[in-house]
Amino acid sequence: THNYRITLLPGDGIGPEIMTVAVEVLKAVGQQCNLQFDFQEALIGGAAIDATGSPLPEETLLKCRNSEAVLLAAIGGYKWDNLPRPQRPETGLLGLRAGLELFANLRPAKILPQLIDASSLKREVVEGVDIMVVRELTGGVYFGQPKGIFTTETGEKRGVNTMAYTESEIDRIGRVAFETAQKRQGRLCSVDKANVLEVSQLWRDRISALASEYPDIELSHLYVDNAAMQLVRAPKQFDTIVTGNLFGDILSDAAAMLTGSIGMLPSASLGASGPGVFEPVHGSAPDIAGQDKANPLAQVLSAAMMLRYGLNQPEAADKIEQAVLQVLDSGYRTGDIMSEGMKPVGCQAMGEALLQAL
Amino acid sequence: THNYRITLLPGDGIGPEIMTVAVEVLKAVGQQCNLQFDFQEALIGGAAIDATGSPLPEETLLKCRNSEAVLLAAIGGYKWDNLPRPQRPETGLLGLRAGLELFANLRPAKILPQLIDASSLKREVVEGVDIMVVRELTGGVYFGQPKGIFTTETGEKRGVNTMAYTESEIDRIGRVAFETAQKRQGRLCSVDKANVLEVSQLWRDRISALASEYPDIELSHLYVDNAAMQLVRAPKQFDTIVTGNLFGDILSDAAAMLTGSIGMLPSASLGASGPGVFEPVHGSAPDIAGQDKANPLAQVLSAAMMLRYGLNQPEAADKIEQAVLQVLDSGYRTGDIMSEGMKPVGCQAMGEALLQAL
Ligand SMILES: CC(C)[C@H](C(=O)O)[C@@H](O)C(=O)O
Ligand SMILES: CC(C)[C@H](C(=O)O)[C@@H](O)C(=O)O
Repeated sequence: THNYRITLLPGDGIGPEIMTVAVEVLKAVGQQCNLQFDFQEALIGGAAIDATGSPLPEETLLKCRNSEAVLLAAIGGYKWDNLPRPQRPETGLLGLRAGLELFANLRPAKILPQLIDASSLKREVVEGVDIMVVRELTGGVYFGQPKGIFTTETGEKRGVNTMAYTESEIDRIGRVAFETAQKRQGRLCSVDKANVLEVSQLWRDRISALASEYPDIELSHLYVDNAAMQLVRAPKQFDTIVTGNLFGDILSDAAAMLTGSIGMLPSASLGASGPGVFEPVHGSAPDIAGQDKANPLAQVLSAAMMLRYGLNQPEAADKIEQAVLQVLDSGYRTGDIMSEGMKPVGCQAMGEALLQAL
Repeated sequence: THNYRITLLPGDGIGPEIMTVAVEVLKAVGQQCNLQFDFQEALIGGAAIDATGSPLPEETLLKCRNSEAVLLAAIGGYKWDNLPRPQRPETGLLGLRAGLELFANLRPAKILPQLIDASSLKREVVEGVDIMVVRELTGGVYFGQPKGIFTTETGEKRGVNTMAYTESEIDRIGRVAFETAQKRQGRLCSVDKANVLEVSQLWRDRISALASEYPDIELSHLYVDNAAMQLVRAPKQFDTIVTGNLFGDILSDAAAMLTGSIGMLPSASLGASGPGVFEPVHGSAPDIAGQDKANPLAQVLSAAMMLRYGLNQPEAADKIEQAVLQVLDSGYRTGDIMSEGMKPVGCQAMGEALLQAL
C-alpha cells in the first residue's frame, strides 16, 4: 500500500460540502487500489480570515508543503469582498500559488455527451470539444513588480501593474505544455499578443525556439483576441493551448463555459517539485452554501486529477472518472445540470450515487 | 449643404475594394441628404511601408488631423508579418490612435435577424443580442512605460509591459461609457480584474465614483474572466460594457464573434476633439484580396457610424443602415455570410445592391 498525506482546504461557501463527497470517494477508491490517505485539514480564504485574520495562515502553507498533494475546494464570498487587498480570500489563493511555486495550471474543458445540451453553443459546434488550457500561474501581470497605486507629479493617482516574463519562466511552462500536448493529440496553440506587447514577443520567440525539441508537436500561434473569437466560433480546432497568467485566466474560463456546465470542471496547479493543488474551476457559490444543492462532481474530478497528476495513480483516477460518467448515465443531476427527464439529487445523494458506482 | 473633408485610408488586402463601395454609398446618401464629401486618400499599414518605409507616414497623420473624419479599411498581411516592430502595420494603427488621441473605441455587436443562423450559439441564446463595448484605446498595457525586452542581472532576457491608468484617463472613458449607455438601455457593465490588479482597483473605484453623476444608469462590475464566461453563457444580459484597452480587445472580439458574421461589424474610435476614425472590426483578409469576394458591409456600416458619431448626421446614418438591412432582406450575400437559398454576390455587386436600395 501507498500512503499519501493529503492537505484538504475546504475553504468557503459550498467548499466543505463538496469536499466531504470528494473525501469519501477518495477513501472508497483508495480501498480498491490499495492507497491510503492521511488527510489533514487546513484553513484558507474567508474561513481563515475569520479564524486568524489572514487568508493564508503560515500554518496552512506549512501543512501543504508537508504533504504529497493539496485538494482545495473554493474560496470567497460577499462577506469578505470589501476587505483591504491583503486580507481578501483571493490573496490567500495567490499566496498559495506563489508559496508552492505552482507555475503550471492545467484546465481541461471537455464536453461530456451526457451534458452537451447544457452548452449555449450549437451541438455540432461543441460535440467532441476536448481542450486543455495550460496557463502560467506564478508570473505575468499577476505578480510583476512594480505594482500599486501611485501619485503622479500632477497629484493624480495612477494604478500600475507590470506584465513581465523572463525566458526561464516561459521555457518551464512551455515544456509542460509541449509535454501535455504529447500526451494528447499533439497540437499546441500558443496564445499571446505579440503584435503589440514586448512581453508577448519574447513569449512567442521562446515557445517557437522550444518547438525544435518537440518535433512531434504541431505548434501554432494566435493573438489573444483571435483566440477568444476562435473559441466561440470553432472550438474543435483546439487541442492544447498554452498562454500566460492573465490570458489563461480569461481563455480558460471562456473555454470552460463552452461546456455549459462549469460545475463539472476540475483543474490542477503544479510546481517543479512539491505538492500540486487540485481544485474545481467553479467558485464558492455562497448563495447555495449549506443547502445540499451543490454539484460535487468538479471537486470529485479534481480528486481524480490529483491522483493522475499529483500522485501518479492513473488507474485510481480512471476509476473516479468512470464513476462520474456512470452516475451521469444513470441520470443523476444536481440543480445546475438538471434537464428534463433526469433524476434531481442533492450534493450528498450525488456522493452516494458515486460510491454505488464505484 | 454641409461640406466635409474625409480622409480615406484603404490600407491593405481587401481594404481598397471595400472602401470603393463605402465611398459610393456615401456619395449617394450625401446627394439625398445634402452632404458634400471632399475625399482625400492617404497611406497606412503595409501599403505605406511599401511606399515610404513607415506604416504611418507623417503626411498621413497630417491629412487625418486636417479632416473632419477618417474612414479606415484594414491593415496588415503576411508580407509584413516578420518586419521589426517599428515597421509593422499594427504599429501604424497604434500610432494613428495615439496621434489622434482616440481614447474611446465603440464596438457594437448586434445580432441581425437575417444572419442569426451564422452564429455558433443557439438561436435562443443570441436572439436580440445588442451589445456596445466601449474600449479605452490610448492607455493601459498597450502604451504603458516602461516596456521592452531587457536583460536581467543574471543575463537572461525579460519582456516587460506596463498596465497603467491614471484617474483622468479612467474618468474620460467612463464618461463616454455612461453617456453611451444613456442613449441605449441604460445599463453599464464595467469589466476589470480588481481582485488581482491594482490598476483595476483604481478603475473600479473611479467608475463607481462617476456613477453618482449618472443616477439614470444601472452600473454593475464584472471580473474579466467572468465577463468572458457570461458573454458565452448569456450574452443578452449585456447592454453597454466599458473596459480597458487589453480587456476591450479580447472581449469586443468575443462579443463580435457571437454574431457569427464579423464581416458585418463596424467600429468607431473617438477623441476629445479632432476627427474620429471609423473602421470595420474584421481584418484585411489577404487571401481573398483583389478577387471581388470581400464583404463590404462592415465598411459601409463604418461609414454610417462616421455619419452618426463623427459628423452628427444621424439621418444619413439611418439611411445607410436601412439600406444594409434591405439588401440582406432581399437575400444578397457575400461568401462569408452565404447560406442556402440566398443570392451569392461579390463585393461590387453588393455595392450596386446597396445603391439600388438607397
Ligand atoms: C480568484 C482569482 C484570483 C483567480 C485568478 O484570477 O487566477 C481565479 O479567477 C482563477 O482563475 O483561479
Ligand atoms: C491590430 C491590433 C494592434 C489591434 C488591437 O489590438 O487593438 C486589433 O486587434 C484591434 O482590436 O483593433
